[in-house]
Amino acid sequence: MNLLANREALLVRVQAQMHDKRYQHTLGVAETARRLAERYGADPDKAELAGYLHDYCKCWPVEKMRDILVRHDMPEELLNGEKELWHAFAGAIVIQTELGVTDPEILQAVRYHTTGRAGMSLLEKVVCVADYIEPNRNFPGVEQIRSLAQQDLNAALAEALGGTIRFLIEQRKTVYPLTLTAYNDLVSRQ
Amino acid sequence: MNLLANREALLVRVQAQMHDKRYQHTLGVAETARRLAERYGADPDKAELAGYLHDYCKCWPVEKMRDILVRHDMPEELLNGEKELWHAFAGAIVIQTELGVTDPEILQAVRYHTTGRAGMSLLEKVVCVADYIEPNRNFPGVEQIRSLAQQDLNAALAEALGGTIRFLIEQRKTVYPLTLTAYNDLVSRQ
Repeated sequence: MNLLANREALLVRVQAQMHDKRYQHTLGVAETARRLAERYGADPDKAELAGYLHDYCKCWPVEKMRDILVRHDMPEELLNGEKELWHAFAGAIVIQTELGVTDPEILQAVRYHTTGRAGMSLLEKVVCVADYIEPNRNFPGVEQIRSLAQQDLNAALAEALGGTIRFLIEQRKTVYPLTLTAYNDLVSRQ
Repeated sequence: MNLLANREALLVRVQAQMHDKRYQHTLGVAETARRLAERYGADPDKAELAGYLHDYCKCWPVEKMRDILVRHDMPEELLNGEKELWHAFAGAIVIQTELGVTDPEILQAVRYHTTGRAGMSLLEKVVCVADYIEPNRNFPGVEQIRSLAQQDLNAALAEALGGTIRFLIEQRKTVYPLTLTAYNDLVSRQ
Protein backbone atom coordinates (compact mmCIF):
# COMPACT_ATOMS: atom_id res chain seq x y z
CA MET A 1 0.00 0.00 0.00
CA ASN A 2 1.28 3.48 -0.83
CA LEU A 3 1.03 5.22 2.52
CA LEU A 4 1.67 8.61 0.99
CA ALA A 5 -1.46 8.29 -1.15
CA ASN A 6 -3.58 7.28 1.83
CA ARG A 7 -3.79 9.97 4.47
CA GLU A 8 -5.59 7.85 7.08
CA ALA A 9 -3.14 4.97 6.79
CA LEU A 10 -0.20 7.40 6.95
CA LEU A 11 -1.55 8.98 10.11
CA VAL A 12 -1.98 5.56 11.74
CA ARG A 13 1.67 4.90 10.98
CA VAL A 14 2.77 8.32 12.23
CA GLN A 15 0.71 7.98 15.41
CA ALA A 16 2.36 4.64 16.17
CA GLN A 17 5.78 6.35 16.41
CA MET A 18 4.95 8.76 19.22
CA HIS A 19 2.99 9.52 22.38
CA ASP A 20 -0.31 11.34 22.14
CA LYS A 21 0.94 14.82 23.02
CA ARG A 22 3.53 14.64 20.24
CA TYR A 23 0.85 13.39 17.84
CA GLN A 24 -1.43 16.32 18.65
CA HIS A 25 1.53 18.64 18.04
CA THR A 26 2.14 16.88 14.71
CA LEU A 27 -1.45 17.48 13.60
CA GLY A 28 -1.13 21.10 14.67
CA VAL A 29 2.05 21.60 12.65
CA ALA A 30 0.48 20.03 9.54
CA GLU A 31 -2.57 22.26 9.79
CA THR A 32 -0.51 25.39 10.49
CA ALA A 33 1.99 24.60 7.74
CA ARG A 34 -0.86 24.20 5.22
CA ARG A 35 -2.28 27.57 6.29
CA LEU A 36 1.10 29.32 6.07
CA ALA A 37 1.75 27.71 2.67
CA GLU A 38 -1.55 29.07 1.39
CA ARG A 39 -0.69 32.48 2.83
CA TYR A 40 2.83 32.70 1.38
CA GLY A 41 2.55 30.71 -1.86
CA ALA A 42 4.20 27.40 -0.99
CA ASP A 43 2.59 24.06 -1.98
CA PRO A 44 -0.09 23.40 0.69
CA ASP A 45 -0.13 19.60 0.16
CA LYS A 46 3.62 19.36 0.54
CA ALA A 47 3.50 21.59 3.60
CA GLU A 48 0.81 19.45 5.23
CA LEU A 49 2.66 16.22 4.45
CA ALA A 50 5.95 17.61 5.76
CA GLY A 51 4.05 18.62 8.89
CA TYR A 52 2.77 15.06 9.43
CA LEU A 53 6.27 13.68 8.96
CA HIS A 54 8.49 16.29 10.62
CA ASP A 55 8.70 14.59 14.05
CA TYR A 56 8.44 10.99 12.82
CA CYS A 57 11.50 9.92 14.85
CA LYS A 58 11.17 12.41 17.71
CA CYS A 59 10.12 9.80 20.30
CA TRP A 60 12.48 7.07 19.15
CA PRO A 61 15.32 6.01 21.47
CA VAL A 62 18.36 8.24 20.94
CA GLU A 63 20.57 5.22 20.32
CA LYS A 64 18.37 4.18 17.40
CA MET A 65 18.61 7.70 15.96
CA ARG A 66 22.35 7.73 16.53
CA ASP A 67 22.76 4.44 14.65
CA ILE A 68 20.86 5.84 11.67
CA LEU A 69 22.97 9.01 11.63
CA VAL A 70 26.23 7.06 11.88
CA ARG A 71 25.18 4.64 9.11
CA HIS A 72 24.41 7.61 6.86
CA ASP A 73 27.69 9.43 7.57
CA MET A 74 26.16 12.47 9.20
CA PRO A 75 28.79 15.03 10.33
CA GLU A 76 30.63 14.72 13.64
CA GLU A 77 29.38 18.21 14.48
CA LEU A 78 25.84 16.77 14.58
CA LEU A 79 26.76 13.61 16.48
CA ASN A 80 28.70 15.63 19.07
CA GLY A 81 26.00 18.29 19.33
CA GLU A 82 22.71 18.42 21.23
CA LYS A 83 20.70 15.19 20.85
CA GLU A 84 17.51 17.23 20.45
CA LEU A 85 18.58 17.90 16.87
CA TRP A 86 19.00 14.26 15.84
CA HIS A 87 15.34 13.48 15.16
CA ALA A 88 15.16 15.93 12.25
CA PHE A 89 18.15 14.49 10.37
CA ALA A 90 17.25 10.89 11.23
CA GLY A 91 13.63 11.63 10.31
CA ALA A 92 14.54 12.81 6.81
CA ILE A 93 16.44 9.55 6.29
CA VAL A 94 13.70 7.30 7.74
CA ILE A 95 10.77 8.82 5.84
CA GLN A 96 12.75 8.27 2.66
CA THR A 97 13.90 4.71 3.35
CA GLU A 98 10.84 3.40 5.22
CA LEU A 99 7.94 5.45 3.85
CA GLY A 100 9.21 6.10 0.35
CA VAL A 101 9.18 9.90 0.44
CA THR A 102 11.29 11.03 -2.50
CA ASP A 103 10.36 14.70 -2.89
CA PRO A 104 13.56 16.62 -2.03
CA GLU A 105 11.60 19.67 -0.90
CA ILE A 106 9.74 17.64 1.72
CA LEU A 107 12.89 15.80 2.79
CA GLN A 108 14.75 19.10 3.27
CA ALA A 109 11.83 20.63 5.14
CA VAL A 110 11.95 17.73 7.60
CA ARG A 111 15.76 17.70 7.77
CA TYR A 112 16.07 21.41 8.62
CA HIS A 113 12.90 21.99 10.60
CA THR A 114 14.77 22.26 13.93
CA THR A 115 18.16 23.75 13.08
CA GLY A 116 17.24 25.85 10.07
CA ARG A 117 20.08 26.67 7.68
CA ALA A 118 21.24 29.56 5.49
CA GLY A 119 19.22 29.86 2.28
CA MET A 120 16.12 28.01 3.48
CA SER A 121 13.43 27.32 0.87
CA LEU A 122 9.95 28.72 1.33
CA LEU A 123 8.64 25.26 2.31
CA GLU A 124 11.42 24.84 4.86
CA LYS A 125 10.55 28.21 6.40
CA VAL A 126 6.84 27.35 6.48
CA VAL A 127 7.40 24.06 8.31
CA CYS A 128 9.94 25.56 10.69
CA VAL A 129 7.65 28.45 11.65
CA ALA A 130 4.63 26.12 11.89
CA ASP A 131 6.60 23.99 14.35
CA TYR A 132 7.03 27.05 16.59
CA ILE A 133 3.49 28.43 16.42
CA GLU A 134 1.05 25.50 16.02
CA PRO A 135 -1.91 25.93 18.39
CA ASN A 136 -0.60 23.61 21.14
CA ARG A 137 2.61 25.63 21.53
CA ASN A 138 2.77 27.72 24.66
CA PHE A 139 6.15 29.25 25.50
CA PRO A 140 7.19 32.80 26.39
CA GLY A 141 7.27 34.82 23.18
CA VAL A 142 5.09 32.50 21.05
CA GLU A 143 2.43 35.19 20.56
CA GLN A 144 4.99 37.56 19.12
CA ILE A 145 6.07 34.90 16.59
CA ARG A 146 2.43 34.07 15.77
CA SER A 147 1.72 37.72 15.17
CA LEU A 148 4.79 38.18 12.93
CA ALA A 149 3.86 35.03 10.98
CA GLN A 150 0.71 36.78 9.81
CA GLN A 151 2.73 39.57 8.22
CA ASP A 152 6.27 38.48 7.43
CA LEU A 153 7.44 34.86 7.39
CA ASN A 154 11.14 35.82 7.46
CA ALA A 155 10.69 38.14 10.43
CA ALA A 156 8.77 35.40 12.27
CA LEU A 157 11.53 32.90 11.59
CA ALA A 158 14.30 35.32 12.64
CA GLU A 159 12.39 35.98 15.88
CA ALA A 160 11.90 32.24 16.46
CA LEU A 161 15.48 31.18 15.74
CA GLY A 162 16.91 34.17 17.61
CA GLY A 163 14.78 33.22 20.61
CA THR A 164 15.99 29.63 20.43
CA ILE A 165 19.63 30.71 20.35
CA ARG A 166 19.13 33.00 23.33
CA PHE A 167 17.27 30.27 25.23
CA LEU A 168 20.01 27.71 24.57
CA ILE A 169 22.68 30.14 25.77
CA GLU A 170 20.71 30.91 28.92
CA GLN A 171 20.69 27.14 29.54
CA ARG A 172 24.46 26.98 28.81
CA LYS A 173 23.82 24.58 25.95
CA THR A 174 25.68 24.59 22.67
CA VAL A 175 24.03 26.16 19.62
CA TYR A 176 24.19 24.24 16.34
CA PRO A 177 26.13 26.43 13.87
CA LEU A 178 23.47 25.98 11.16
CA THR A 179 20.98 27.72 13.41
CA LEU A 180 23.23 30.76 13.69
CA THR A 181 23.84 30.86 9.94
CA ALA A 182 20.07 30.61 9.38
CA TYR A 183 19.51 33.51 11.80
CA ASN A 184 22.35 35.62 10.30
CA ASP A 185 21.04 34.97 6.80
CA LEU A 186 17.54 36.18 7.70
CA VAL A 187 18.72 39.24 9.63
CA SER A 188 21.24 40.37 7.03
CA ARG A 189 18.52 40.35 4.35
CA GLN A 190 16.10 42.50 6.34
CA MET B 1 63.70 53.52 18.24
CA ASN B 2 62.20 50.19 19.24
CA LEU B 3 58.81 51.20 20.56
CA LEU B 4 58.18 47.78 22.03
CA ALA B 5 61.23 48.16 24.29
CA ASN B 6 60.14 51.60 25.47
CA ARG B 7 56.83 51.54 27.31
CA GLU B 8 56.48 55.33 27.55
CA ALA B 9 57.11 55.88 23.84
CA LEU B 10 54.72 53.04 22.96
CA LEU B 11 51.97 54.55 25.09
CA VAL B 12 52.44 57.95 23.41
CA ARG B 13 51.98 56.21 20.06
CA VAL B 14 48.93 54.24 21.27
CA GLN B 15 47.34 57.33 22.80
CA ALA B 16 47.70 59.19 19.49
CA GLN B 17 45.39 56.63 17.81
CA MET B 18 42.33 57.15 19.99
CA HIS B 19 40.21 59.47 22.10
CA ASP B 20 40.80 59.67 25.82
CA LYS B 21 38.00 57.37 26.94
CA ARG B 22 39.32 54.63 24.67
CA TYR B 23 42.83 55.24 26.01
CA GLN B 24 41.66 54.88 29.62
CA HIS B 25 39.94 51.63 28.60
CA THR B 26 43.19 50.48 26.97
CA LEU B 27 45.16 51.09 30.16
CA GLY B 28 42.46 49.23 32.11
CA VAL B 29 42.65 46.20 29.80
CA ALA B 30 46.46 46.10 30.02
CA GLU B 31 46.39 46.22 33.83
CA THR B 32 43.57 43.65 34.07
CA ALA B 33 45.18 41.34 31.51
CA ARG B 34 48.45 41.40 33.50
CA ARG B 35 46.57 40.51 36.68
CA LEU B 36 44.63 37.67 35.00
CA ALA B 37 47.86 36.37 33.43
CA GLU B 38 49.50 36.24 36.86
CA ARG B 39 46.43 34.49 38.26
CA TYR B 40 46.15 31.85 35.52
CA GLY B 41 49.77 31.32 34.47
CA ALA B 42 50.02 33.23 31.18
CA ASP B 43 52.96 35.54 30.46
CA PRO B 44 52.17 38.84 32.27
CA ASP B 45 54.39 40.97 30.03
CA LYS B 46 52.76 39.63 26.87
CA ALA B 47 49.31 40.09 28.39
CA GLU B 48 50.05 43.71 29.31
CA LEU B 49 51.49 44.47 25.86
CA ALA B 50 48.52 42.83 24.11
CA GLY B 51 46.27 44.94 26.31
CA TYR B 52 48.02 48.17 25.24
CA LEU B 53 47.72 47.15 21.60
CA HIS B 54 44.33 45.43 21.42
CA ASP B 55 42.31 48.50 20.33
CA TYR B 56 45.06 50.21 18.35
CA CYS B 57 42.78 50.71 15.32
CA LYS B 58 39.46 50.98 17.16
CA CYS B 59 39.03 54.71 16.50
CA TRP B 60 40.34 54.69 12.95
CA PRO B 61 37.90 55.46 10.10
CA VAL B 62 36.13 52.29 8.98
CA GLU B 63 37.23 52.83 5.39
CA LYS B 64 40.87 52.78 6.46
CA MET B 65 40.26 49.52 8.32
CA ARG B 66 38.39 48.09 5.37
CA ASP B 67 41.29 48.91 3.03
CA ILE B 68 43.71 47.08 5.31
CA LEU B 69 41.45 44.02 5.51
CA VAL B 70 40.94 43.92 1.74
CA ARG B 71 44.66 44.29 1.07
CA HIS B 72 45.35 41.38 3.40
CA ASP B 73 42.70 39.10 1.88
CA MET B 74 40.54 38.82 4.97
CA PRO B 75 37.44 36.63 4.42
CA GLU B 76 34.25 37.99 2.86
CA GLU B 77 32.42 36.81 5.96
CA LEU B 78 34.35 39.44 7.94
CA LEU B 79 33.98 42.20 5.37
CA ASN B 80 30.23 41.58 5.10
CA GLY B 81 29.78 41.26 8.86
CA GLU B 82 29.46 43.85 11.61
CA LYS B 83 32.05 46.64 11.27
CA GLU B 84 32.61 46.55 15.04
CA LEU B 85 34.76 43.47 14.48
CA TRP B 86 37.12 44.98 11.96
CA HIS B 87 39.42 46.80 14.38
CA ALA B 88 40.64 43.54 15.91
CA PHE B 89 41.69 41.95 12.61
CA ALA B 90 43.03 45.22 11.21
CA GLY B 91 44.80 45.87 14.52
CA ALA B 92 46.69 42.58 14.39
CA ILE B 93 47.92 43.51 10.90
CA VAL B 94 48.87 47.09 11.80
CA ILE B 95 50.77 46.34 15.00
CA GLN B 96 52.81 43.85 13.00
CA THR B 97 53.50 46.03 9.98
CA GLU B 98 53.79 49.44 11.68
CA LEU B 99 55.01 48.65 15.19
CA GLY B 100 57.02 45.52 14.46
CA VAL B 101 55.19 43.11 16.77
CA THR B 102 56.21 39.63 15.68
CA ASP B 103 55.13 37.45 18.62
CA PRO B 104 52.35 35.23 17.21
CA GLU B 105 50.75 34.85 20.63
CA ILE B 106 50.32 38.61 20.98
CA LEU B 107 49.13 38.98 17.39
CA GLN B 108 46.49 36.27 17.89
CA ALA B 109 45.39 37.76 21.20
CA VAL B 110 44.73 41.08 19.44
CA ARG B 111 43.17 39.41 16.37
CA TYR B 112 40.64 37.38 18.36
CA HIS B 113 40.00 39.69 21.31
CA THR B 114 36.51 40.64 20.08
CA THR B 115 35.19 37.58 18.24
CA GLY B 116 36.96 34.85 20.14
CA ARG B 117 37.41 31.54 18.28
CA ALA B 118 37.36 27.82 19.03
CA GLY B 119 40.52 26.62 20.73
CA MET B 120 41.62 29.99 22.14
CA SER B 121 45.04 30.11 23.81
CA LEU B 122 45.35 31.10 27.45
CA LEU B 123 46.70 34.53 26.44
CA GLU B 124 43.79 35.05 24.04
CA LYS B 125 41.31 34.21 26.80
CA VAL B 126 43.07 36.53 29.26
CA VAL B 127 42.93 39.51 26.89
CA CYS B 128 39.35 38.81 25.81
CA VAL B 129 38.11 38.57 29.41
CA ALA B 130 40.17 41.63 30.43
CA ASP B 131 38.45 43.57 27.65
CA TYR B 132 35.08 42.74 29.20
CA ILE B 133 35.91 43.39 32.87
CA GLU B 134 38.51 46.19 33.03
CA PRO B 135 37.56 48.71 35.74
CA ASN B 136 35.96 51.26 33.38
CA ARG B 137 33.47 48.69 32.02
CA ASN B 138 29.94 49.16 33.23
CA PHE B 139 27.28 47.09 31.46
CA PRO B 140 24.51 44.84 32.79
CA GLY B 141 26.10 41.55 33.85
CA VAL B 142 29.69 42.79 34.14
CA GLU B 143 29.84 42.01 37.86
CA GLN B 144 28.92 38.38 37.20
CA ILE B 145 31.77 38.09 34.67
CA ARG B 146 34.20 39.84 37.06
CA SER B 147 33.23 37.43 39.79
CA LEU B 148 33.62 34.36 37.55
CA ALA B 149 36.99 35.65 36.35
CA GLN B 150 38.32 35.29 39.90
CA GLN B 151 37.50 31.57 39.91
CA ASP B 152 37.31 30.16 36.40
CA LEU B 153 38.59 31.94 33.30
CA ASN B 154 36.69 29.63 30.91
CA ALA B 155 33.40 30.13 32.74
CA ALA B 156 33.93 33.90 32.69
CA LEU B 157 34.61 33.83 28.97
CA ALA B 158 31.58 31.61 28.23
CA GLU B 159 29.42 34.02 30.23
CA ALA B 160 30.88 37.02 28.41
CA LEU B 161 30.60 35.61 24.89
CA GLY B 162 27.16 34.13 25.58
CA GLY B 163 26.01 37.55 26.81
CA THR B 164 27.40 39.21 23.69
CA ILE B 165 25.57 36.75 21.40
CA ARG B 166 22.30 37.29 23.28
CA PHE B 167 22.77 41.08 23.16
CA LEU B 168 23.46 41.06 19.42
CA ILE B 169 20.34 38.97 18.79
CA GLU B 170 18.22 41.29 20.93
CA GLN B 171 19.50 44.11 18.68
CA ARG B 172 18.73 42.00 15.56
CA LYS B 173 22.37 42.15 14.55
CA THR B 174 24.28 39.30 12.96
CA VAL B 175 26.60 37.22 15.14
CA TYR B 176 30.05 36.42 13.79
CA PRO B 177 30.27 32.61 13.46
CA LEU B 178 33.66 32.49 15.24
CA THR B 179 32.00 33.89 18.35
CA LEU B 180 29.49 31.04 18.38
CA THR B 181 32.20 28.43 17.85
CA ALA B 182 34.19 30.01 20.70
CA TYR B 183 31.13 29.86 22.96
CA ASN B 184 30.26 26.27 21.91
CA ASP B 185 33.85 25.19 22.47
CA LEU B 186 33.90 26.57 26.02
CA VAL B 187 30.47 25.21 26.96
CA SER B 188 31.07 21.74 25.56
CA ARG B 189 34.24 21.38 27.64
CA GLN B 190 32.60 22.34 30.92
